[in-house]
Amino acid sequence: MTDTLTFNTKHLLQALFESGIRHFIVSPGSRSTPIALLLAEYAEQNNEIKLFVDVDERSAGFFALGIAKTLLEPVALLGTSGTAIAEYMPAVAEAYAANIPLVVLSTDRPQELQFNGAPQTIPQSNLFGQLTKQAVLIRLQDMHSDVTAYIDFMVQKVVNLSITAPRGPIQINLPLRKPLMPGLARQDEVHVQRVVFEQQTVQYHLPPITAKRLLILAGPNVLDSYDDSLKNFAIKNNVPVIADVLSQSRHTYTIHGIDVLLQAHKINADLKPDLVVRFGKTPVSARVLQWLKEEKILTWHVDEDAGVDHTRHIARAIKMSPNDFLENMHLTLFKNQIDFNQKWLSLPKVTKTRNEMNIITALDDAVPDDTHIFVANSMPIRDMDNFFTGNHTQRIYANRGANGIDGVISSALGMSAVVKQRSILLTGDLTLFHDMNGLMMAKNYQLPLDIIVINNNGGGIFSFLPQAGAPKYFEQLFGTPLNIDMKKIADLYDIDYHQLSVPEALSQILQTPSKKTRLIEYKSDRQRNRDDHRDVLEMLK
Amino acid sequence: MTDTLTFNTKHLLQALFESGIRHFIVSPGSRSTPIALLLAEYAEQNNEIKLFVDVDERSAGFFALGIAKTLLEPVALLGTSGTAIAEYMPAVAEAYAANIPLVVLSTDRPQELQFNGAPQTIPQSNLFGQLTKQAVLIRLQDMHSDVTAYIDFMVQKVVNLSITAPRGPIQINLPLRKPLMPGLARQDEVHVQRVVFEQQTVQYHLPPITAKRLLILAGPNVLDSYDDSLKNFAIKNNVPVIADVLSQSRHTYTIHGIDVLLQAHKINADLKPDLVVRFGKTPVSARVLQWLKEEKILTWHVDEDAGVDHTRHIARAIKMSPNDFLENMHLTLFKNQIDFNQKWLSLPKVTKTRNEMNIITALDDAVPDDTHIFVANSMPIRDMDNFFTGNHTQRIYANRGANGIDGVISSALGMSAVVKQRSILLTGDLTLFHDMNGLMMAKNYQLPLDIIVINNNGGGIFSFLPQAGAPKYFEQLFGTPLNIDMKKIADLYDIDYHQLSVPEALSQILQTPSKKTRLIEYKSDRQRNRDDHRDVLEMLK
Repeated sequence: MTDTLTFNTKHLLQALFESGIRHFIVSPGSRSTPIALLLAEYAEQNNEIKLFVDVDERSAGFFALGIAKTLLEPVALLGTSGTAIAEYMPAVAEAYAANIPLVVLSTDRPQELQFNGAPQTIPQSNLFGQLTKQAVLIRLQDMHSDVTAYIDFMVQKVVNLSITAPRGPIQINLPLRKPLMPGLARQDEVHVQRVVFEQQTVQYHLPPITAKRLLILAGPNVLDSYDDSLKNFAIKNNVPVIADVLSQSRHTYTIHGIDVLLQAHKINADLKPDLVVRFGKTPVSARVLQWLKEEKILTWHVDEDAGVDHTRHIARAIKMSPNDFLENMHLTLFKNQIDFNQKWLSLPKVTKTRNEMNIITALDDAVPDDTHIFVANSMPIRDMDNFFTGNHTQRIYANRGANGIDGVISSALGMSAVVKQRSILLTGDLTLFHDMNGLMMAKNYQLPLDIIVINNNGGGIFSFLPQAGAPKYFEQLFGTPLNIDMKKIADLYDIDYHQLSVPEALSQILQTPSKKTRLIEYKSDRQRNRDDHRDVLEMLK
Repeated sequence: MTDTLTFNTKHLLQALFESGIRHFIVSPGSRSTPIALLLAEYAEQNNEIKLFVDVDERSAGFFALGIAKTLLEPVALLGTSGTAIAEYMPAVAEAYAANIPLVVLSTDRPQELQFNGAPQTIPQSNLFGQLTKQAVLIRLQDMHSDVTAYIDFMVQKVVNLSITAPRGPIQINLPLRKPLMPGLARQDEVHVQRVVFEQQTVQYHLPPITAKRLLILAGPNVLDSYDDSLKNFAIKNNVPVIADVLSQSRHTYTIHGIDVLLQAHKINADLKPDLVVRFGKTPVSARVLQWLKEEKILTWHVDEDAGVDHTRHIARAIKMSPNDFLENMHLTLFKNQIDFNQKWLSLPKVTKTRNEMNIITALDDAVPDDTHIFVANSMPIRDMDNFFTGNHTQRIYANRGANGIDGVISSALGMSAVVKQRSILLTGDLTLFHDMNGLMMAKNYQLPLDIIVINNNGGGIFSFLPQAGAPKYFEQLFGTPLNIDMKKIADLYDIDYHQLSVPEALSQILQTPSKKTRLIEYKSDRQRNRDDHRDVLEMLK
């Protein structure tokens, strides 16, 4: 007869498998022992179950996030009690803001060790507060006939909740009492009652669109792609599409780099639409939303999770997937739409960039089809949005919920761990440093990621902000040069190092086959980069 | 005329100074710009105000914690909005559990950017939930005559709360609207109304102690030292004192290494007290509390914060400082107390240790008076508790609230930043790795810390736990070897490296003058270490 702990832990794990969880990131600890060991046993018996071990819980959280983002499926974290669980907070915050289904399995000390000075104990039930969609507590050692069935149902329920729009993280807190050793190598099977959470078919009643000049603004798209529907729609109806780099729409009919076009005053009255339909999350370009607002352009927003309108300008928030919207909308377009579309498609393109920006254009030239590219926040994502064209087979990701500079290495490595070909990360040096511990996963799992680091020795974006006008304290508070040798980082983590003397050399490195993680450094200069951006803008004017 | 933002921010900062905050750890960001710049200006004008910049907020949190712990005063963190604030969570959790006054200044986006998809925005008001004693929100740009006075009072009130027993972290959330540039180099002064939070004198009515055999168990002591009172009391009354390594009591009359003594069955019936008075927090040795409980020994607990009793055994929880207790108690001791004390003082001592344990004895021999030593959790703190004798001028610290392996490097560096002589950190390799980013502060501020790392390539403590009995998954889930070259870490961060071939060589390195941070590596072996501990115990039996 299997003991209660082993029996119920197997129910917990099987209910997680039934819910579609295949990836588990475990961080070592004592309190999580029964779950970690039984999980390792399942993973050994079943190739579908992937178990990664990451000693730094902060990095583990972002590694899980990278996988969840890439596969669009829930991913589980398993950690031990105390600050280990608090370490997940940054990744949970990003998952909250970006609607990613992270499932935090936080093992805890039992109730008799709460609030009385027991070691490694913090009040971790509902630790993440508003950031989780639900936080439940399951006592696996509770010997009661109803408990096992409760575990089966509750686990499936909360994981389903995490993948129901608006998607988001959930926490399952698991207080465990010693002894913690489970029964391994047992033959007795456990059967989990599968629950089907049925999504009802919705009948949409959309208002007819009778715009004279319709434009689509395709924002970041973390859910299933609407790329094909959008392509058919845009071509058929001559609708111009402003495509955010994270929209995954990259076709001949899409308009990229809206931010520089607006900065260079290229969007004149001729290009003003009657109606803009925005899809997805907040675009990388703050300027495009500002433009819609200032020009008082009627704007609808279509998103499964909706409620995204921080410029307070949206007239109609339509809670549905862009895909469904495109298939269900009734459109009456006027003849001048063809002309309008043509004007948008005839906008000048940036033909000459410099230095840091040349990394983007070199990437554009060099990156193979189907490649997944993760992009750091601050400068890299802005430059990618402005200067990357690519094609629709490529996928671009970023931590674009809370836009932190933390956890980016781990998120990119998580992405690269679940795609079939080499992936790319484009980052700055500060972001690389912040999650340098994440590189341990590169070392331990030999993940096929090319990390392109633009090293301008500190916080490049601040040179573009008003604080650049306080030179006395600038380097101390904002510039924050790290003076760190990237080659030594590569050496420490056993990954290959390449220095790019010129951006154009990128292609050759990326084309060289490798099974290792590679760090590709391009040395830059913050002051020069600011001037370069001004020059590129001037050339476009 | 100064603008509202500048005026109120100066009030905020001056109220923090008035409250006794002298140390600020700033992490770069845009939203925190006005506070960071005005703070830098104050720090430039006033040597009392110390400003540190740490690019990794997780490390910054623990660096602040180390300072607060060492100086017994509140320390402030300043961070930008979004995941940056979430990064403080682990340090806040430790501050909560260890009663450390951390003051989190979290800059936030204004109300109109909440919950609508604005970048870098998470619901950060009261982000730390139960972990903070109070979380307040102050809108510095609110132009109302009552606001400035409110800032003066509220800031002083919450900082005072953080240093009132039970001490703990607090959060001041500061939503800020653009433009964020403050007025610098202004001559107009700001006057903050100082508030005196008066502590009333308490009249204690303690029950008289009429024990035949009284024993003191001096636990971890993070508050003001009671060392002198305890010394006088113990010597005058012949009361044996079991001194936890974190009690800071190290005299000829104190008994150390209770855990090995209990393991070696050296504590027989002759040594059983009638009454034990416990001071302070949960001791490092779990076994000593187990012994009190199993032997049904009447136990009182004296602590300003009280409520520390996870073995559910304390008969009387006395909420006062050990110092006051020692001065106010009425004691009637019987003659046999002298004999009882003598028996305790005659207990055998560990005279021979091996390998990893020899690092402790070598440290004992080598460490100068008045040295501050920070000790990592897991094996180092247990070994220190068992094998370190030292003297009462030395101070030993650890993150012994939630006992995490995270943030230890930063906490130790924070400690070393505020003491006058070289300090020491004793850590394992996994703990070093977990907060490796913390070493950036060593590099940037050249902090005089000797980091002794016992490198047994992974999680040493698990070899002592039941999971060692699951060899199939042990290395993957618990051993987790890092295979990382410590010399390369030192090289990366520009700190000196020394390898200890034998523990006895430690003395020579510590005696060599240096102005840099040093990494001193001792290579060990987990399996051998477990065997060594068994052997040392056998020798004591």
